[in-house]
Amino acid sequence: LRQGAPEVIFGEGKSAGQIFTIVEKMAEKGSNVLVTRLAAEKAEPLLARFPDATYDTDARAFCLTQRPLEIATRGTVLVVCAGTSDLPVAREAAVTARMLGNPVEELVDVGVAGIHRLFARADKLREAAVVIVVAGMEGALPSVIGGLVAVPVIAVPTSVGYGAAFGGVAALLGMLNSCAGGVTVVNIDNGFGAAYAATRINRIIQP
Amino acid sequence: LRQGAPEVIFGEGKSAGQIFTIVEKMAEKGSNVLVTRLAAEKAEPLLARFPDATYDTDARAFCLTQRPLEIATRGTVLVVCAGTSDLPVAREAAVTARMLGNPVEELVDVGVAGIHRLFARADKLREAAVVIVVAGMEGALPSVIGGLVAVPVIAVPTSVGYGAAFGGVAALLGMLNSCAGGVTVVNIDNGFGAAYAATRINRIIQP
Amino acid sequence: LRQGAPEVIFGEGKSAGQIFTIVEKMAEKGSNVLVTRLAAEKAEPLLARFPDATYDTDARAFCLTQRPLEIATRGTVLVVCAGTSDLPVAREAAVTARMLGNPVEELVDVGVAGIHRLFARADKLREAAVVIVVAGMEGALPSVIGGLVAVPVIAVPTSVGYGAAFGGVAALLGMLNSCAGGVTVVNIDNGFGAAYAATRINRIIQP
Amino acid sequence: LRQGAPEVIFGEGKSAGQIFTIVEKMAEKGSNVLVTRLAAEKAEPLLARFPDATYDTDARAFCLTQRPLEIATRGTVLVVCAGTSDLPVAREAAVTARMLGNPVEELVDVGVAGIHRLFARADKLREAAVVIVVAGMEGALPSVIGGLVAVPVIAVPTSVGYGAAFGGVAALLGMLNSCAGGVTVVNIDNGFGAAYAATRINRIIQP
Amino acid sequence: LRQGAPEVIFGEGKSAGQIFTIVEKMAEKGSNVLVTRLAAEKAEPLLARFPDATYDTDARAFCLTQRPLEIATRGTVLVVCAGTSDLPVAREAAVTARMLGNPVEELVDVGVAGIHRLFARADKLREAAVVIVVAGMEGALPSVIGGLVAVPVIAVPTSVGYGAAFGGVAALLGMLNSCAGGVTVVNIDNGFGAAYAATRINRIIQP
Amino acid sequence: LRQGAPEVIFGEGKSAGQIFTIVEKMAEKGSNVLVTRLAAEKAEPLLARFPDATYDTDARAFCLTQRPLEIATRGTVLVVCAGTSDLPVAREAAVTARMLGNPVEELVDVGVAGIHRLFARADKLREAAVVIVVAGMEGALPSVIGGLVAVPVIAVPTSVGYGAAFGGVAALLGMLNSCAGGVTVVNIDNGFGAAYAATRINRIIQP
Amino acid sequence: LRQGAPEVIFGEGKSAGQIFTIVEKMAEKGSNVLVTRLAAEKAEPLLARFPDATYDTDARAFCLTQRPLEIATRGTVLVVCAGTSDLPVAREAAVTARMLGNPVEELVDVGVAGIHRLFARADKLREAAVVIVVAGMEGALPSVIGGLVAVPVIAVPTSVGYGAAFGGVAALLGMLNSCAGGVTVVNIDNGFGAAYAATRINRIIQP
Amino acid sequence: LRQGAPEVIFGEGKSAGQIFTIVEKMAEKGSNVLVTRLAAEKAEPLLARFPDATYDTDARAFCLTQRPLEIATRGTVLVVCAGTSDLPVAREAAVTARMLGNPVEELVDVGVAGIHRLFARADKLREAAVVIVVAGMEGALPSVIGGLVAVPVIAVPTSVGYGAAFGGVAALLGMLNSCAGGVTVVNIDNGFGAAYAATRINRIIQP
Ligand SMILES: Nc1ncnc2c1ncn2[C@@H]1O[C@H](COP(=O)(O)O)[C@@H](O)[C@H]1O
Ligand SMILES: Nc1ncnc2c1ncn2[C@@H]1O[C@H](COP(=O)(O)O)[C@@H](O)[C@H]1O
Ligand SMILES: Nc1ncnc2c1ncn2[C@@H]1O[C@H](COP(=O)(O)O)[C@@H](O)[C@H]1O
Ligand SMILES: Nc1ncnc2c1ncn2[C@@H]1O[C@H](COP(=O)(O)O)[C@@H](O)[C@H]1O
Ligand SMILES: [Mg+2]
Ligand SMILES: [Mg+2]
Ligand SMILES: [Mg+2]
Ligand SMILES: [Mg+2]
Ligand SMILES: [Mg+2]
Ligand SMILES: [Mg+2]
Ligand SMILES: [Mg+2]
Ligand SMILES: [Mg+2]
Repeated sequence: LRQGAPEVIFGEGKSAGQIFTIVEKMAEKGSNVLVTRLAAEKAEPLLARFPDATYDTDARAFCLTQRPLEIATRGTVLVVCAGTSDLPVAREAAVTARMLGNPVEELVDVGVAGIHRLFARADKLREAAVVIVVAGMEGALPSVIGGLVAVPVIAVPTSVGYGAAFGGVAALLGMLNSCAGGVTVVNIDNGFGAAYAATRINRIIQP
Repeated sequence: LRQGAPEVIFGEGKSAGQIFTIVEKMAEKGSNVLVTRLAAEKAEPLLARFPDATYDTDARAFCLTQRPLEIATRGTVLVVCAGTSDLPVAREAAVTARMLGNPVEELVDVGVAGIHRLFARADKLREAAVVIVVAGMEGALPSVIGGLVAVPVIAVPTSVGYGAAFGGVAALLGMLNSCAGGVTVVNIDNGFGAAYAATRINRIIQP
Repeated sequence: LRQGAPEVIFGEGKSAGQIFTIVEKMAEKGSNVLVTRLAAEKAEPLLARFPDATYDTDARAFCLTQRPLEIATRGTVLVVCAGTSDLPVAREAAVTARMLGNPVEELVDVGVAGIHRLFARADKLREAAVVIVVAGMEGALPSVIGGLVAVPVIAVPTSVGYGAAFGGVAALLGMLNSCAGGVTVVNIDNGFGAAYAATRINRIIQP
Repeated sequence: LRQGAPEVIFGEGKSAGQIFTIVEKMAEKGSNVLVTRLAAEKAEPLLARFPDATYDTDARAFCLTQRPLEIATRGTVLVVCAGTSDLPVAREAAVTARMLGNPVEELVDVGVAGIHRLFARADKLREAAVVIVVAGMEGALPSVIGGLVAVPVIAVPTSVGYGAAFGGVAALLGMLNSCAGGVTVVNIDNGFGAAYAATRINRIIQP
Repeated sequence: LRQGAPEVIFGEGKSAGQIFTIVEKMAEKGSNVLVTRLAAEKAEPLLARFPDATYDTDARAFCLTQRPLEIATRGTVLVVCAGTSDLPVAREAAVTARMLGNPVEELVDVGVAGIHRLFARADKLREAAVVIVVAGMEGALPSVIGGLVAVPVIAVPTSVGYGAAFGGVAALLGMLNSCAGGVTVVNIDNGFGAAYAATRINRIIQP
Repeated sequence: LRQGAPEVIFGEGKSAGQIFTIVEKMAEKGSNVLVTRLAAEKAEPLLARFPDATYDTDARAFCLTQRPLEIATRGTVLVVCAGTSDLPVAREAAVTARMLGNPVEELVDVGVAGIHRLFARADKLREAAVVIVVAGMEGALPSVIGGLVAVPVIAVPTSVGYGAAFGGVAALLGMLNSCAGGVTVVNIDNGFGAAYAATRINRIIQP
Repeated sequence: LRQGAPEVIFGEGKSAGQIFTIVEKMAEKGSNVLVTRLAAEKAEPLLARFPDATYDTDARAFCLTQRPLEIATRGTVLVVCAGTSDLPVAREAAVTARMLGNPVEELVDVGVAGIHRLFARADKLREAAVVIVVAGMEGALPSVIGGLVAVPVIAVPTSVGYGAAFGGVAALLGMLNSCAGGVTVVNIDNGFGAAYAATRINRIIQP
Repeated sequence: LRQGAPEVIFGEGKSAGQIFTIVEKMAEKGSNVLVTRLAAEKAEPLLARFPDATYDTDARAFCLTQRPLEIATRGTVLVVCAGTSDLPVAREAAVTARMLGNPVEELVDVGVAGIHRLFARADKLREAAVVIVVAGMEGALPSVIGGLVAVPVIAVPTSVGYGAAFGGVAALLGMLNSCAGGVTVVNIDNGFGAAYAATRINRIIQP
């Protein structure tokens, strides 16, 4: 994508050994490296090997930054979610967006059932260039936020919930049917994909 | 249920002739009569025969009130919906609730994407004894309202929408997963059932 | 909600440590505390720390009552279920309703296939101010009970069953299509939500 | 199957002309003929041509009986349904069962929401050799009846209902999950198939 | 049901201790006892306690026969399945049918893809009073057998298969749409229910 | 594809005028032309304009053959279906296969419930180079045929049926789960696609 | 949104009279007006009343431009689709994007099965600031295009197709699972929503 | 099928002991043996017993070749997949195709989002007699390949992906709706079935 854009590895379903080998090879080339969906125990050998790297427990993401990230963006990517259950997906989005060169802000604990908490932060909403809204259960938050801001809103349904939440389907359908303009949707739990799309939106295009 | 409670006929799938015969027989006994899901053209012979009866075009409901309704309720049933598409279901609820002896208030054009319009009417929300919230598409309105009031909220999903609205399924799932307490749900488009349940809630129970 | 209303924590997906910390902080403020969906082993440190608290094994719920509950209700909340498999959800509803300040009665082992057992308890059904009916498999019990009582019925589908029970979907659909008036529905296995809605219904509203 | 067993034609999706030709050919051979799912206007030329034949408006079935039916059955086939909406399917079952040589009884207007009406007819239930139970919406009736009788119960879900009835799926799932023993199920609206299976059950087998 | 009919316990989801207590209590009354869906390790204490009892490893069923079974049936219940994967469900049906007082025959390894093996056993098919057909994957066997016999066929879909088998849904739908007359269906994997219904069919009714 | 291979137009959703214009343009180039899913009334102007063209009423297909078809195939494409309801799809396959240069045989009225009719034609099955099997409802025919032949079988589910046939889904799932080797599947009602794939299989490849 | 941004009316389900009244009122205020999903016959009275307005037959959209549109965008919105069946949705997107002040380019007849046609237009793809990709059936086009461009891609599934297309569900799922980064999705057939989101992306934000 | 065609065992759900016994018996007869879906630890005793046999870790398949395979095929079976996640299914297809007597080529790491990698291998695509395309997530690869080759394409959806991938359903639907001619589909993850069908296609038929 741009200077310093990381190589990305999808950690799920790969063994600690496989991941170590891939990261090592990428690191040798001097690349920045992002591993998503990485279980804590698989991160340990990587952190031992690369002392400057970090591992985000919530996001379950490993970040190795060897080269400076080039920032040529329109503004801030704001990641919003309602509560602690949605946090892993929200933080996957935030960590990814940072590694892709965006300034990132986060807003947690703002749900539709206690909407005053959301309004108390309206300023933050209005300052963003792109908003990523992460929500499980009924997935109503993007509609409300889409009505409050004038910038693009990327909605990420999460698999949080039980029963008729159907592993994120209820939230996904809610978001696809959003009555607010400017809302687009990515796959269930796909914080990475939301951040990737937000980065394309947030790039300053040279005319 | 109580004094003056109407006999109710489900009009859909019955011929004009069948309905006329049933209503006539009920009217002879002196009963009040409510016909729901009644097409306008099937209402005509009934209105000709019972000049004091009324037909609500939005609700598609016929009401014949021969006996006074006994009002022994805790308060007002408030029916809320976001827009004109949900109006038929909202008005089926309102007309039914009135025929079942409840004082009824209506609040239309308050959706989640323009949430300030809802807040402007917060007083009305807080005065109700029961709130019926009718919403299609993402069905997010009951969660927001459930967070604003302290009384029971009955959510009615509507079949309004297209594509991934799946004939009301998206709204239904959203409502079942409401993160707000106090929200219960009825079948898609079932304004009648919501009003019936609201009436049971709104009744003053003799100790 | 009212005097003594508890702070509520959803225990599923949180570690024993996280829960301990949250409860401790709430307890310090003198609040009553209810933790639902709490595995037995996570309850142990809490019970050691708060010797007056209780843990209900069926409901998987922890209750700490530091302040007296204010009872200002219309009557009794009756929780009904068909058998031992549905018991955890039924008891989650009962424990929650009690913590929210309602007098609670329970009726177990009354299913539609042996309906005489239900009729033998008809008196109990008629004494309630609200009935919560918990049922898995075909979820037919709320329809039968809705036809026997004149008060609101809240139906809770459970994920009990196998094959075409589809984790509670069969029961959910049965309840949404109930041919009995006055029945409203909450999410699969959501005993807590049913009790919360019942509490709103059961409150005496000051005029 | 046996003496006098009719040739059966599925009328749906065939033109009046096609059906006329097929019936004519069968009639020439002296066979009894049953046409199911036959629209009234397509029945007219047949009734004109075969003055002794009958057409059942509810069942939408045409019956031509040229040979006596051999009755060698264990007892009566009882067809039960809750109301007028399910009547077409119930009568398709009844007409078919008669044409296949069974004594048939019918019981309508006995639903789960007004279960006392069902108990008032318990004698009739207990006299049957096989019971066919036809029900739409939540499809709970077979479970209740399965608990009252000791003979086989064949459950027929109907497409009656709206919204979350999903064209008979809710009733079908309810019946498949019946908690009562002895209940088996056929396809949605398949009154014919239920009668056919009942006939096999009701046959006296020569040892 | 009749002399010697067993008490039945559904073993799944109950602890070894719970089951032991229930069986003990029933055994004391002199009853026959059948426990279905019982894991092998939970059967061990029961077999130690009741040396005359048996445990069927395939069916995962425990049988204690203290009183003679009364046989008053029309004939044999034949249980058919295609292969070893469907065997547990087929044997649950067979063991249950025997405990309910039916002579039982079994026919395994006869599938639709090698249909000659089925035809080689056509005699056995024709001797049965009721046929239970157990099949997973496409569930086509009941249609073929329904066309070969004149007695009732009870179809049991199994959860055997992967991918688009959807845990037995493909087989269930196939059976509900059977183009052969006389086929009725029970829930996925419900060998018990099929045997129970077969027993009602197979009973000699006293006139 | 090869010499004389037709231009193909999907007729559904196009107006008579649009189709006429497209066919005219293709005809001018001397091409052969096939229009599928063409309503009879839209075929009329085409037949008037091209007197040598034909229209197959069952297949609802228009064929204009201006150039000789080159036949360089391994053998015959056999199209099999169970009955008259599946005929339109079967004939769409047959007509398309002929226009694509294959010798075609057809076998109708051979269903799984009367399997002897199928065996009576086993010779025909064994002579084919590819077999297309068209079936609705439970879609079991391809499994049976796949077990009888040694050549590729292409299964076409049809939307024939009602209730739990779900517009062809039951047949589709049955076919995808076929326990017979060598069966592959195309979309519901896609006779065209089956013939197209059969043609690729049936081509003689020049080494 | 900005200077000259139109008032938008969703035409489906509203009568010609209702739409006329709404448009008239908006026009009086001097606003630009866009009516989507408007049947041709309902557009006629509007075109008679507003001679400068236009009606796009493919998009089924009415546009009245009374005030100049303010163009302050990053670049061009490119709308891509595979063929004539997807054209109505593609043109709804294009017309909307124009009315919202974007320069718009269109690329039709570029599908995944003839991918060389797409590559022939790669230059056009690379010039866009945002790409809207409209596709029915398997909905694979956005993945391919997402891999060719570096700007945001908004995918619009259409209800085009039959059988297992399930009214756009197949395309929707394909797009949500896109293996290409930067793809976000809107509701089935929601050309309007895609254009609205594209406009937010394409706006030049004042720092 | 032909000389040397192996006996095939589906390893999933069978114990190491069961599999050992079956393989031993087959080996004694001198047959070639293929065991699919075999966990590595269950393969160990087999490899110890048959030192000439092989076990493919990716495919999870055991192959014992005692007799020479007869090769009488039209050409090469080419197995294509996008990446490492789909590899197990792709290799199951490749191993099976080899054991069934086909020359096999493999092409991995060619996905739709980086389509140039696919084009770089176009020669390989054009040399095959049959192409098996294995793809998860959106399952778009078969459409693209179907448009590039003139031979039959067998599409295998995989359960790779998360969220709205629904365990392979998204890929399955994409493939069934392929807009490219000549594509047929097998069950999710059914690499074996694809290879079996490919073998029937690839056989040289003796005239
Ligand atoms: N959490 C995630 N969710 C979805 N896609 C991801 C995620 N993380 C990485 N990816 C994608 O997966 C690719 C790497 O996959 P792999 O080669 O299997 O490691 C990356 O280039 C991303 O496009
Ligand atoms: N709009 C409605 N939706 C659902 N149920 C209704 C509706 N209107 C009436 N009903 C119910 O249908 C019953 C009458 O049905 P019927 O006897 O078919 O006219 C009433 O007693 C109500 O319980
Ligand atoms: N395998 C089975 N599948 C379905 N229902 C069963 C099965 N085994 C027993 N049952 C039913 O479950 C009842 C006992 O349930 P429980 O009281 O929970 O042990 C029996 O009376 C049967 O009706
Ligand atoms: N009955 C059919 N079912 C599926 N696809 C078809 C059918 N008839 C034609 N097609 C495909 O549709 C293409 C023509 O589509 P169109 O350009 O819209 O007329 C042909 O090249 C075929 O690939
Ligand atoms: Mg949420
Ligand atoms: Mg709405
Ligand atoms: Mg139950
Ligand atoms: Mg009913
Ligand atoms: Mg099977
Ligand atoms: Mg068929
Ligand atoms: Mg397309
Ligand atoms: Mg893939």
